[in-house]
Amino acid sequence: MSVIKAAIVGGTGYTGVELLRLLSGHNGVEVRAITSRAESGTPVAELFPSLRGHYDLKFTAPDVEELAACDVVFFATPHGVAQAQVPELIARGVRVIDLSADFRLQDIPTWEAWYGQQHGCPELAAEAVYGLPEVNRTQIAGAQLIACPGCYPTAIQLGFLPLLEAGLIETSGLIANAASGASGAGRQGKTDLLFAENNDSFRAYAAGGHRHLPEIEQGLGRAAGTPVALTFVPHLLPMVRGIHATLYAKLKDPAAAGATQAALQSQFEQRYASEPFVDVMPAGSHPQTRSVKGTNVCRLSVMRPQDRDTVVVLSVIDNLAKGASAQAIQNMNIMFGLNENQGLESPALLP
Amino acid sequence: MSVIKAAIVGGTGYTGVELLRLLSGHNGVEVRAITSRAESGTPVAELFPSLRGHYDLKFTAPDVEELAACDVVFFATPHGVAQAQVPELIARGVRVIDLSADFRLQDIPTWEAWYGQQHGCPELAAEAVYGLPEVNRTQIAGAQLIACPGCYPTAIQLGFLPLLEAGLIETSGLIANAASGASGAGRQGKTDLLFAENNDSFRAYAAGGHRHLPEIEQGLGRAAGTPVALTFVPHLLPMVRGIHATLYAKLKDPAAAGATQAALQSQFEQRYASEPFVDVMPAGSHPQTRSVKGTNVCRLSVMRPQDRDTVVVLSVIDNLAKGASAQAIQNMNIMFGLNENQGLESPALLP
Amino acid sequence: MSVIKAAIVGGTGYTGVELLRLLSGHNGVEVRAITSRAESGTPVAELFPSLRGHYDLKFTAPDVEELAACDVVFFATPHGVAQAQVPELIARGVRVIDLSADFRLQDIPTWEAWYGQQHGCPELAAEAVYGLPEVNRTQIAGAQLIACPGCYPTAIQLGFLPLLEAGLIETSGLIANAASGASGAGRQGKTDLLFAENNDSFRAYAAGGHRHLPEIEQGLGRAAGTPVALTFVPHLLPMVRGIHATLYAKLKDPAAAGATQAALQSQFEQRYASEPFVDVMPAGSHPQTRSVKGTNVCRLSVMRPQDRDTVVVLSVIDNLAKGASAQAIQNMNIMFGLNENQGLESPALLP
Amino acid sequence: MSVIKAAIVGGTGYTGVELLRLLSGHNGVEVRAITSRAESGTPVAELFPSLRGHYDLKFTAPDVEELAACDVVFFATPHGVAQAQVPELIARGVRVIDLSADFRLQDIPTWEAWYGQQHGCPELAAEAVYGLPEVNRTQIAGAQLIACPGCYPTAIQLGFLPLLEAGLIETSGLIANAASGASGAGRQGKTDLLFAENNDSFRAYAAGGHRHLPEIEQGLGRAAGTPVALTFVPHLLPMVRGIHATLYAKLKDPAAAGATQAALQSQFEQRYASEPFVDVMPAGSHPQTRSVKGTNVCRLSVMRPQDRDTVVVLSVIDNLAKGASAQAIQNMNIMFGLNENQGLESPALLP
Repeated sequence: MSVIKAAIVGGTGYTGVELLRLLSGHNGVEVRAITSRAESGTPVAELFPSLRGHYDLKFTAPDVEELAACDVVFFATPHGVAQAQVPELIARGVRVIDLSADFRLQDIPTWEAWYGQQHGCPELAAEAVYGLPEVNRTQIAGAQLIACPGCYPTAIQLGFLPLLEAGLIETSGLIANAASGASGAGRQGKTDLLFAENNDSFRAYAAGGHRHLPEIEQGLGRAAGTPVALTFVPHLLPMVRGIHATLYAKLKDPAAAGATQAALQSQFEQRYASEPFVDVMPAGSHPQTRSVKGTNVCRLSVMRPQDRDTVVVLSVIDNLAKGASAQAIQNMNIMFGLNENQGLESPALLP
Repeated sequence: MSVIKAAIVGGTGYTGVELLRLLSGHNGVEVRAITSRAESGTPVAELFPSLRGHYDLKFTAPDVEELAACDVVFFATPHGVAQAQVPELIARGVRVIDLSADFRLQDIPTWEAWYGQQHGCPELAAEAVYGLPEVNRTQIAGAQLIACPGCYPTAIQLGFLPLLEAGLIETSGLIANAASGASGAGRQGKTDLLFAENNDSFRAYAAGGHRHLPEIEQGLGRAAGTPVALTFVPHLLPMVRGIHATLYAKLKDPAAAGATQAALQSQFEQRYASEPFVDVMPAGSHPQTRSVKGTNVCRLSVMRPQDRDTVVVLSVIDNLAKGASAQAIQNMNIMFGLNENQGLESPALLP
Repeated sequence: MSVIKAAIVGGTGYTGVELLRLLSGHNGVEVRAITSRAESGTPVAELFPSLRGHYDLKFTAPDVEELAACDVVFFATPHGVAQAQVPELIARGVRVIDLSADFRLQDIPTWEAWYGQQHGCPELAAEAVYGLPEVNRTQIAGAQLIACPGCYPTAIQLGFLPLLEAGLIETSGLIANAASGASGAGRQGKTDLLFAENNDSFRAYAAGGHRHLPEIEQGLGRAAGTPVALTFVPHLLPMVRGIHATLYAKLKDPAAAGATQAALQSQFEQRYASEPFVDVMPAGSHPQTRSVKGTNVCRLSVMRPQDRDTVVVLSVIDNLAKGASAQAIQNMNIMFGLNENQGLESPALLP
Repeated sequence: MSVIKAAIVGGTGYTGVELLRLLSGHNGVEVRAITSRAESGTPVAELFPSLRGHYDLKFTAPDVEELAACDVVFFATPHGVAQAQVPELIARGVRVIDLSADFRLQDIPTWEAWYGQQHGCPELAAEAVYGLPEVNRTQIAGAQLIACPGCYPTAIQLGFLPLLEAGLIETSGLIANAASGASGAGRQGKTDLLFAENNDSFRAYAAGGHRHLPEIEQGLGRAAGTPVALTFVPHLLPMVRGIHATLYAKLKDPAAAGATQAALQSQFEQRYASEPFVDVMPAGSHPQTRSVKGTNVCRLSVMRPQDRDTVVVLSVIDNLAKGASAQAIQNMNIMFGLNENQGLESPALLP
């Protein structure tokens, strides 16, 4: 197959540089353009010295013709941008992988309520495929527009899916206690994201309501076949990369054969037996975020402490990789019929 | 009043050096002895250069006569040590404040099951007062032996107490998702506590069962007037000091007048109105662990996200301070009739 | 003596909150006002939750009458601000302690060259006393305007002084390799100060020329009695507080009796024998920045590796404390005839 | 070419797991064995979960037959081990790449003085090739035994070489101020390497004399054609990976044409023009350690501050990669006639 021509819109953020890092090792793709209004003309290797020797590209102002000449365009932009630019690309036959929140929610009023603005392109939202391969692999293969899942939603959905699909847990009273490295907040010069404000400290944020909540509930509801009610509290970790989600649910029937620790372990192993990027750890394991740093892997562990009624799932991903750019490439591989692993095979950097 | 003569048994760990730091600013106390078999003869300021100029003391091998000559002895030892040494001190009229787990559990078989050894002194366990001043201030004032609460138990009990005492939440299905800085694991040369193993990473541990679970359930059960069932998952943070507990409970009657966000806020404020070291933050706040670093303060926030059935409490303390040594001094102040704030008034080091 | 009335101009930065933290434990001072145009009306405890329960103050817009009613005004402002506001306060008899760079350099053209603007008040620069108590204690006692030393200059001067004053080292070819925690860069929302940009990484900055260079050379030149030539390379550490300076100089006469390791040690110990805040460590020590965290202490170690011609000095301070706010309070104590230690006696927070 | 059969002796440390990580992406090599007495029988993916799915290997007790059946054996062991085991492997025709210090020094008495034991194999030390490809590429290609450079020596030599080879600087009075991430201290459970002892702190160590000093001086002396005198002070950073060396030297003739900032820049660029892993940054740059994390790259910058007599070089590497395991693979690639870049092409993980 010939090399896929790719472009990245909005390349100065962390998901942009992560796409560049990962695609530099992907033989099947050539990055033709990377856009940024603010940095137009700047070599990407000047903004990101880690890419010196890997890319000769310069940032360019967004240009539809340049993007339309590509096979695939990644949007690594704040919400609202893709809605405006994607329709023309779709119309011209380009495949689009949107890493932003623009097309993740099927229910437009919900999107508009949580994002505080009118949705610019409801008709494409209906058409977009939610890019969680572990759920939608077939649809992804045939999609023209992918809505890549958010970072928290990826970690949390992969952790709850085996339990909800098997009907083992109550669908209300779900708890997702999650924590993210600071890169999840993006590359913006905000006072409360300073090193001196966050090192050696820890805090929750948006406990009253985070924009990822409706996305997670949408996905869990599909898995359960019924609406779910989730309490989701995100936290900010004094580290750069990684999401750790600790999930709690009440067993429907604690005495059921399928509710033993061994049965739960087996349920998880079977659910993900053929998934290349979901790793169910041995019973009793506590996955570390560093074990997935830089990779597309989600590591899971399931427990039933003291054989009580509450089941606990631990789920770790790299927020910039499986939670964003690596998962976007996994989607691209599926869309273009490549080996799903291509460009995503390196183990995590540890220590 | 004359100066209180104090000794510290087991002074080479983090709670030992924290006691020394805090007592150096306490006008009413003089540290007469600090023991360590391994470091006997070493000046404390050599092991802990931060204390240069503050203490001329050397570590000494434990000596009953030396300890018995003091008014109060702090045990900053691993579990099992205080059980062996405390009885003689008690018999000789010395007051003892034990920072270890030896006398925290009233139920001896439970203690023996979780700590995997026979309890050396069950009769004193019955007599010991659990040193959480917000619950037991009166008993502490008259006690000869204080069992200082563990770090997680302090943060978690203070967060749940207002809800349980008021009967607002279900007593089963309680969730305590907590995270601690690495100093909580002590000053021991273990591979999995190395800097290179923990920086820029995050993980749960002991999710299947942590020794603080029975202590927490004991305290919550007393507050509720009935046994409770808690799921407790601790995590290890890439930072030195601080505990953050995120607590989840189901409202008994979500439609009750006492269950509104405003009523919950009011409940917390009233419960702790006269407590010098519990700070209920304004509604919507997210307390940071750094805001209590080095202090005896517990900062709390209560929320009811989306007005659903689950109430969320955020609770932060410094694990070495309110979670150990500062709370021990608060107990001492109460026991000796001093101002409860004495030696504990400095604000947190921020940033 | 009656309580000193103090004000802080520019209180939203890190030196401002550090002044508040330290002054809360100083019995001889009451903070009457703290100014900030941007945060006027905001309670300081809202911006800095660590101060909840310690201050009822709100930030106010700067008001000359309010400041002039105080005994002492601290300027915790960017350079250029004090030059404009100090003259009127001085004229009205207020004592001023400026933590900024405005009055540190005696040579006005040098100041103007390094700061890229005209000096607003050259006549006061001549009158200002450089607030390094270990050099200028007597002048400080009688001063009305103090120019507090910069953070790097404090650590570096205290390290070189014993060698230069004794004429033991060459005055050219001096090397100061220093590293600072991120709080030294201030509380400003700049992209390159983000947590995600600095954690788990290290870099030099301003190696071609940093504004502290002329200040350091001015001080070292005075100590040597002749101009010196220094190469100064600062670095940014992935930590919050602390400066570590590693100093290198060539011994004038390596064979001299005063140049042995023991003689150098003795030279340092004698130079600082009566200094309350300079701690010469035992020979062979490597001071850690954490050993001075939150304190006014400078810890020093001097070595002559392999008995070669180069002498090495290690010097650590807390950049926000001895490098800024604590040293400002030390100056205030001297100016007002208080015990020099007052409010500055707590040991470092360790671990 | 057929696949190279490789073994790793001493695989439980950080250079061992880094070899495994990098070799998993090297198509030309298959790891046949990895030894550890202590972990014999344990799957490597159990000790290092980041390798789950990448290796089925288990640690085995060292076995000469198993090692001798390989084409190349890497020693990732403490000093002293390779000396004992290498001779037999060499005799049997196996190529050996030793990451330890055993064969780095040509002068045996110097080795014995710094390492405090008798050298077990002086005759092989004479034969071993020092594996710094930028100096010894030709000899490496024909070598049977490679002594891989230490981490500090790699960063420091690459920084000084262009200046010494061109005779631009004095060979005495050289200063190497360097700092390393904590992974450089290895994976050993020592108290002073704990997270709680090192986070948010910084210190020098071994300032009186570090074992890498004679290795560095040996290399610099060869480059200069005359013995050099270096003062080397290492420091421990609160981060995991990375070395930053800040080098200072006195220009022989500050007025020479070759001593201008532009000429120095050009000198560096020419020296490393054809080196695949040495990146001379643009004039005025400050390389960050994170820009080389996980890679075999050394990034350099050269400056002449204020056009004075001192030249400053900034040099960054990843201590576990270019400072150990990646450089070992670069050596292997050269020895076996592979593309020197093979398996070493991924950009750094940033952020």
